[in-house]
Order: sequence, then C-alpha cells, then structure tokens
Amino acid sequence: MRYSQAFLPSLREVPKDATTPSHVFLLRGGFVRMIGAGIYEMLPLGFRVLSRVTDIVRREMNRTGAQEVLMPAILPAEYFQETGRWEGFGDTLLRLKDRKGNDYHLGPTHEEIITDMVRRDVKSYRQLPLNLYQIQQKFRDEARPRAGLLRGREFIMKDAYSFDVDEAGALRSYETMREAYHRVFKRLGLDYRIVQADSGAMGGNTSAEFQVLAQTGEDAIVACTACDYAANVEVAETTWPAAPTSSSSTNAIEKVATPGKSSIADVVSFLGNGLTASGTLKALLVAVGDDVAMAVVRGDRDVNPIALAKKLGVAELVLASEEQIKASGTKPGYAGPVGFSGRIVVDPEAATLVDGVAGANEWNQHLRNVNFVRDYQGEVAPIRQVSGGDACPRCSGTLESYRGIEGGHIFILGTHYSAKMGANFLDEAGQQKTAIMGCYGIGVSRLVATAIEQHHDADGIKWPMSIAPFHVIVTTIGKDDVAKTAAETLYGELRERGVDVLYDDRDERPGVKFKDADLIGIPLRIVVGARGLAEGKLEVKKRTEKDPFFIPVEGAADALRDLVVELGGSLVQL
Amino acid sequence: MRYSQAFLPSLREVPKDATTPSHVFLLRGGFVRMIGAGIYEMLPLGFRVLSRVTDIVRREMNRTGAQEVLMPAILPAEYFQETGRWEGFGDTLLRLKDRKGNDYHLGPTHEEIITDMVRRDVKSYRQLPLNLYQIQQKFRDEARPRAGLLRGREFIMKDAYSFDVDEAGALRSYETMREAYHRVFKRLGLDYRIVQADSGAMGGNTSAEFQVLAQTGEDAIVACTACDYAANVEVAETTWPAAPTSSSSTNAIEKVATPGKSSIADVVSFLGNGLTASGTLKALLVAVGDDVAMAVVRGDRDVNPIALAKKLGVAELVLASEEQIKASGTKPGYAGPVGFSGRIVVDPEAATLVDGVAGANEWNQHLRNVNFVRDYQGEVAPIRQVSGGDACPRCSGTLESYRGIEGGHIFILGTHYSAKMGANFLDEAGQQKTAIMGCYGIGVSRLVATAIEQHHDADGIKWPMSIAPFHVIVTTIGKDDVAKTAAETLYGELRERGVDVLYDDRDERPGVKFKDADLIGIPLRIVVGARGLAEGKLEVKKRTEKDPFFIPVEGAADALRDLVVELGGSLVQL
Repeated sequence: MRYSQAFLPSLREVPKDATTPSHVFLLRGGFVRMIGAGIYEMLPLGFRVLSRVTDIVRREMNRTGAQEVLMPAILPAEYFQETGRWEGFGDTLLRLKDRKGNDYHLGPTHEEIITDMVRRDVKSYRQLPLNLYQIQQKFRDEARPRAGLLRGREFIMKDAYSFDVDEAGALRSYETMREAYHRVFKRLGLDYRIVQADSGAMGGNTSAEFQVLAQTGEDAIVACTACDYAANVEVAETTWPAAPTSSSSTNAIEKVATPGKSSIADVVSFLGNGLTASGTLKALLVAVGDDVAMAVVRGDRDVNPIALAKKLGVAELVLASEEQIKASGTKPGYAGPVGFSGRIVVDPEAATLVDGVAGANEWNQHLRNVNFVRDYQGEVAPIRQVSGGDACPRCSGTLESYRGIEGGHIFILGTHYSAKMGANFLDEAGQQKTAIMGCYGIGVSRLVATAIEQHHDADGIKWPMSIAPFHVIVTTIGKDDVAKTAAETLYGELRERGVDVLYDDRDERPGVKFKDADLIGIPLRIVVGARGLAEGKLEVKKRTEKDPFFIPVEGAADALRDLVVELGGSLVQL
Repeated sequence: MRYSQAFLPSLREVPKDATTPSHVFLLRGGFVRMIGAGIYEMLPLGFRVLSRVTDIVRREMNRTGAQEVLMPAILPAEYFQETGRWEGFGDTLLRLKDRKGNDYHLGPTHEEIITDMVRRDVKSYRQLPLNLYQIQQKFRDEARPRAGLLRGREFIMKDAYSFDVDEAGALRSYETMREAYHRVFKRLGLDYRIVQADSGAMGGNTSAEFQVLAQTGEDAIVACTACDYAANVEVAETTWPAAPTSSSSTNAIEKVATPGKSSIADVVSFLGNGLTASGTLKALLVAVGDDVAMAVVRGDRDVNPIALAKKLGVAELVLASEEQIKASGTKPGYAGPVGFSGRIVVDPEAATLVDGVAGANEWNQHLRNVNFVRDYQGEVAPIRQVSGGDACPRCSGTLESYRGIEGGHIFILGTHYSAKMGANFLDEAGQQKTAIMGCYGIGVSRLVATAIEQHHDADGIKWPMSIAPFHVIVTTIGKDDVAKTAAETLYGELRERGVDVLYDDRDERPGVKFKDADLIGIPLRIVVGARGLAEGKLEVKKRTEKDPFFIPVEGAADALRDLVVELGGSLVQL
C-alpha cells in the first residue's frame, strides 16, 4: 500500500483519559477511534492487526479439529432465562426489545446458545466429542470501560466450547486447547505465563489463565523462575512454616502508647529501634454472619481474600462494619489477637513470629512481645497472599511477581449448563447421559492492545512481525528520481513475493517519515536513498534495534522476504 | 474433514414456514438453525460457505484499493440523530439503553459512522479519494422476516463508502466498484443482471442493483435479450407510442350492462366476442391531497407506482379511500375516464386504444367504443409498468421478464450525509469543499441463500465450486479394507494439495451417503470401491450432472486438484 493513498490519520493530542501505552499509541497511530464510551472503530491499520491476530487464532483452532460456527449477536431472552443469567448478569447485560415488545439481549458470551445448538442436534455419543468455536463481537455494559481496547463494551472474542461424553474426554479436550493456546500466544510473539486460576467445576488443574506480562496489567501473578509454575496471587501456593505448639520467648508482653499510629508503617517508624513491618502482626476484621472473625498475618503481608473466605466458609469476604467492630470490643487501627474473644485465623508466618508488635484493642495502644500460643490462640491456616521472593510450591525455585493482562482463559465447565439445559445424549449402552462441557476464550481485540503494552518504547509501537499491520516500510529519502525508481521497483518486487509493504511515497522530510514509521511500529524499515544506491546497498533497520544494517540492492527483495518469514511473518497469499 | 467427526446434523422435517428452496435446504442440510424470528446461527457447514463468499468479496474489494475497517455494531444515538434517521428509521431500528440510561441502537447501515470517521480525520484533498469498507453484522427489525437468510433481522453485509473531491472522482469510484461487483458476482458463480435502479443523488446512471435471477425473487425485473439493458420494472423504460391528437373511430359510445363484473377479467369474459384485456381500459383512483386523480392504462397492463407518483408530484402513491371515491362521483370497480371530473393521467398505450371498453362510473355499467380525445381527455405520460415482450429502450431487442433477488446495490449518495454532518476538506486552492460520497452494499449472508435459490434440484443444493463448503466428497462403499485404505490415502493426498475434502468415513449404506452428499451439494463426489480399484479407477460425479465418469487411481489427486481449480475453486492455503 502506498502511504499517500492509505487512510493513516495520526493524532497529535490524545484525550486525557488515555494513559496506558496501548490506548495512547492506538489513538496516536490511527489504529482505532472511539465513538462512544468503551466503543471503538477499527481504522485500516487497526483492522490489519486484528485480522492477523484473528488469522493465527483461527488456524490454531482449526488445527485441533475445532469447527467454526457463528452465533448471532442479538439473542432472544429465553436462553439466558433458562439458566438464570438473564437476571444474573445484572447491569452488564445489554437488553432490548423488538417492535413487538419481545425481550432480547446482546451476547456477552454464548454458553447457553451453544448448549442449545448441541441439545437440539446431538443425540448420540457417536456425534461426540465436539469443539465448536466462533470469532465474534461480544457486548458487555462494563461499569467502567477503560484503557481503549483493554476493556471495551463491544469487543472481539474467540470463544470455543467442547462437549464430551465423559470427564476423561473433557480433560483431553482441555489439554488440546491448552496446547493450541500455547501455540497461539507464542505465534503472537507475546511473553506470557499460563497461570493456575480458581479451580474449575471438576477441580484440579482444569482452569487456567493465559496472562500476558505487562506493567499495566490488572492482575497480580507470581511465577517460578525455575519451573513453569505460575498462579494468580489470589490462588497461588507457596511453602508454609509449621504451626508452633509453644512459644520460645521469655520476654514479657508489654503495652506501649502509639498515639494516632494506626497503620503498620506509622507504628514501625514510630517505635523505630530496628523494628520492620515483618516484626509486626496485621489484624483484619471480617464479618461472618453476625459475628466478627479476625485474620492475622505478618505486617509485611497481605491477606488473600479468596483463601480466607474459603477458610471461614463464606462465599465472599465482607469486612466488619464499624458497629460490628465496636461490639467485638476492639478498636479500628488498633486491633490485635491478644484478648480478642472472636474466632481467630492465623497465618503460619504470623504464628511463628517471635515477640511481635500487635494492636492492643484499645485506642492509641499497641503491645510488644506478642507470641502465638503463649499470648493468643487460633486456627493456623495459610491465608496470606503469596508474593515475589516466596518459595515455589513445586520445585526449589523462587517465585517472582508480575503484572499480567488476561489474554485467554481455558476452563472445564462440567455439566453446569448442559444439565440445566438438557444437553443429553445416548451412550453406547443406550443410557441417557449429560455432555461434559469446557469453554475456552481468547480476547482477540484485547490482545491487539496487550501486544502494545508489551512491545513499545517512547516513540511508539514495536509490533511482533506475526501481527504487524505491514511487515516492511519502504521509505524514500530525497527527491532524487533514481531513489524513487529504485523504491518503486523494490515495492513491486516485495509485493510479488507476498511481503506486506507500506511504501512511504510522501513528500515529507525523512525525520517525519521515520517518526511515523516508529509510531505505527512497522518491524522493518528500508531506506532507499541516492547515496546508498550509489554504493549498491539499502539501509535496513529493525524497529527493535537502535542501529541499522545494510544489504545489497541486488537480491534485496528475496533477502527481505526471508527475513520477514524468519521473524515470524506470514506472507500474503496473492 | 472426516464426516464422522464433523458437526453435520441433518433435519428430516423442516418447519412449515420454510418454503423457499434455500430456507428448506439450509435447514435440512445442517447449514443454519433459527434461534428466534429472523435470527439464525451458522453451523460449521453454513460458516464454511459464508467464509468463502466473504473471502471473494474481500479480495475483490482489496483489489480496488478499498481499505477494510470495522465499525461497531452498537452505536450511540447521536450520529443517527444528527441526520434525522434516529426517528426516520422507525420501528426497523433496534434501540437500547445502557446502564446509565443513554440511548444506543444497533447498526442497520453505517453511513453516519463512516461520515463521522472521515470528517474527524480527513482535512485535505490530499487524503482523498478514499474507499472504506467493512464486512459485518447488520441489524434491522424487519416487520416480516422471511425465507431464512433471504431476509433476516441480523445478517452479514459488506458495506463500502467512497469519498471523493468532486463528481468526476465519485463517478470513477462508482465505476471501479461496478467492475469489482461484476467480478464478485461472476466468481460466486451466479447468473445475475445489473439493473438500473431509481436514479441516485447525481441523477443519470449512478444507482444500480445486482439482481441474481431466481424464481423466488421478490423483485420483478426486465432485461434485454440483445443488449445489457436491465431494470427493475418499477423504473424500466420502453418505447411509447405518440399521444394521438384526434380519434379515428366512428363507432358511437355505447353503455352496456355488466352486472357484478367489476374486474377486467370478468368484463372480458362476460362481454366475450373476441374482446381481450388489451381492448379495455383500467382506471386507478389515487388520492392527491384531498382530491382524487385517475390513472388510465390498458387493461392488460399494470400501473407503475413510482412513475405515477412522480407524474402526480407525490412522494408515495396512496389509493383513494372509499369516501374519496364516493365524493368523486364514480363507483369502485366501475370507474372510467369518460365524464370523470378530476385530473386524469393516461398512459400512451391507453390513449392510442381504439374503441376501448371502460367503466361507466355507474354501478354495473361499462362503456364500449371509448376513444381518447373524442370521449375523454387527460395528460398523456408513460405510467404503465414495463413487462416482458416490450421493446428495449436502448436497442432493437426485446425485454424479457425475470424475478430477481437483490444481491448488491451501488449508489452515488452525493453530499446527502457529508453536507449534513460537515465532512469537509480543503481543496488545492484552500477552499472548503464537501466530500462526494458513494455507497456500495453486498448482502453477504443473503448471497449464501441466493446461490441456493439459483442452484438446486429436488435432492438438494448444487453449490458453485467457488463457494462450496467442501470442494470434494470422498465416499467409501463397502466394508472392504482395500477401499478404506485407498480412500484414506486419497483423502491425505487431496488435503496436501489444498483441496478441501469431506471424507465420508461413516458406516452407512451407499444410498444414505449419496443422498447426504447431494443434499449438502458438494460439487464433486469421488466413490472409492473395491470393484473400481481392481480396475485401477475411481468414479467421479459432478453434482450438476447425471452420470459419473472415471479417472485412473494413479495421479487421481493431481487430476482432481486441477479439476477443482478449473471449476473455480480456491485451494486452501496450508
């Protein structure tokens, strides 16, 4: 494509709310435009990247034998009503009525529709297993759409659904998808971790997130530096010290005034004398029905809400209200386990702390030399959040912290939908059984943004070759006719070879051209100028490297094509 | 793909409302399923055909230099409000509100959104011309969705929009699209006519429909048997006789009793004596404000509502109410021009009729020997509908009648949207100008159905090779291991060559397999059986032909690949 004929509008000033790199560069580079909150249109450059990502996802899905379908975006209410999600989805579901007043909604996900497809047309075990997928717009009325394509209200998703005759089959389908996802994320050129998520319907390792590492990620994850263990911090494991059965300290417990020092940091700095946060105890007060329970972790740790909720047997963690705290006999900011009369859950690290500092359950008072067993008791359970530096639960390695963006999720659903909706079949023995489902999502448009979060610098995007909008940008410098002719020739030769070329034929200064090429992130820049031509060479610069290198003009098109392929580019099928 | 692993559910009984061939076969063959009125999901087979059509459309669009974009499906109300279409679209627009109560709708078409895109980012003539297109779901709440994919409420459309600096440029863009559409419809294997539609904003030949010929088509068209003139009957021209200035007849007008004979057919058969409908006059009473006007055509003709509305200067033709007819002094079923006091518009054919039979404006009475000029007067204008047998307005050929399905529409919009929405640019002289727009639609999912309307027999579909879900079906017969091994080998060899093969590996009787292959319409069927193999040959049958032919087993894969390509198939890129 010639730059002069391409619709490549750049934007100097981006809106103030655009702060993440992908949001900024997608707008500045003319990839997308916003037409409403969380609603984006893809300009030609954005559409090109989207198609490349789509193509990789589609090929890898097809390779597994999954079959592509296309379900509608507008869905009659009855399907979600059948499973309770018509109400359950709350305000996130975009509902509408047709001219006759019938209820519809836009599809936020399609479990019900695919289950209906299968219950309607699958009658026998002979028709299973099946894996059906689609690549399609999804609609969710997010309360806070943010960061451009990272969290929109209309976005593009690949959703696959597997149906198996039994759990062993479902596990095979899951494994097949896990491998396909690895291939997808590798081909996309993304640095990612496969992360254990909250366990699925079948328990065990049947739910995993594909987290793309990026500083701007919403999710905190830990991954082992030695093995492939990785997990969302909310469900990550580590090794825990054994709970002590007695206290070794002989130092007597002692009350100390800490006026106005209600945070760990304030207490540490106020008491000084070598005290660190790891020498203190942090107490969290949680409502369990009408009662108040206390969770105790070391002062430098955070409570893992999921682990604590499980231990307490509640669906979701709810902090104690002010009234509840008052009634429990302690004081907010000065709570501690000593003398607390409610249920206490103590993290093993806190339990092994010798002579810790804890709140005294009185205003402006703390206690020194607090020891588990001697001074307070409770149930010991691992309730702290795992963090970087912790030991790997699988090997002798160490966990490291990352921020991640969820790019994919694979998940065995079991019979949650198939049982509710009656997706049954007759097995070999003629018995009626319910299909075991799995579901597998990839946030296709989100991955476009995610790739930028991971691959950019101050000047713009650095697209991996496999998903770049163009493989190569050919730039003329100077007004020399020889250079222009040579550039035209190279442009034609590259196109003939299936290289996707943007030819910057504009009458602009080299500085402007280079800046634009860097902003839109084309992986290879070829400069065609009179001086180089006189020496029989072309300047080639990788977007990811600082310095250019030179290749002979003779055979340049072949050499560049080979380089594109080597870097993971798919040639264009003419 | 192996048949045994494919999701290919057939359906024995289709719903009663499925009457058109495409609707029936899409359901029976397992291409689509309906999940709500006019809302269909594409099963794997349907999706395959849809992708093939999409791919052809996309390649031909790209070939013209048009650039693909993707606009959202959910649109904030403000854009349609700006042009008046938020109200203007009436009940066809699917409207909804988000969680904050803001107004949105689903996109029935995207003129406003693309115009907004261009006004936002195009500032200079240097950025023009542009042709931007997308392939995407569209949503229209049709009052009467019908015939499966022929008229749905959610459907897939390719919509392209051109923006030019002046009318000459717009005409060039229009011509480029016209040629691209020819290539698309040819590659799709469709018999079509390019039909002059109601003239566009610029007048002249700047609006055309691509009508696919099919008995079930909603549109009546005429096309010349000699030249390429074709038009929707509503706007078709023909040659007209000159209006007479006197009457040649000497037969006196005569009243005749026609008790209860209010239709042309009844009058003709009642009066007999060689009278035909072409010897009578048909009068149509139309409301023009409070007045009633009469349109007179020959009894064997129909009034063309568009031509008559234009002549009368009304936006839409409205028939006179019973009260208006009463007040005008005539009687329904017995209206005629003689003695009618209102405005009369007479078609030239009716005006040249000698001694016609017309209503007497009295109950149960007609008049014989009615002649224009002598017995009644009026404005002479061509207001009858053109029909088969008429003379071609362009050459000496004859027009023939067809039924057609609109598969595409190309159209110069002028500045209708760009002026309303301020899509302006600075021209070379620094003057502000408004972009001239064109729009170009293809009903992608409708064409899937249209292809079936044109290519089917009683047993099922006969897909053109270019859009068939599979190029070839390889069918084993018998339980012979030699045949199975040979079939597996052929299956592998064809796949390696990029042929899209369905391998019917099921344990079914040959009759069942052949029936299914015919139903789903695979263009080439290869039968691998022990008997043929013993003779070193394979049976090949085209879906479009009755008898099979034989090819040597040796080199069969190469020969079949060549045949697929020869028939217009695109090999699969591995």
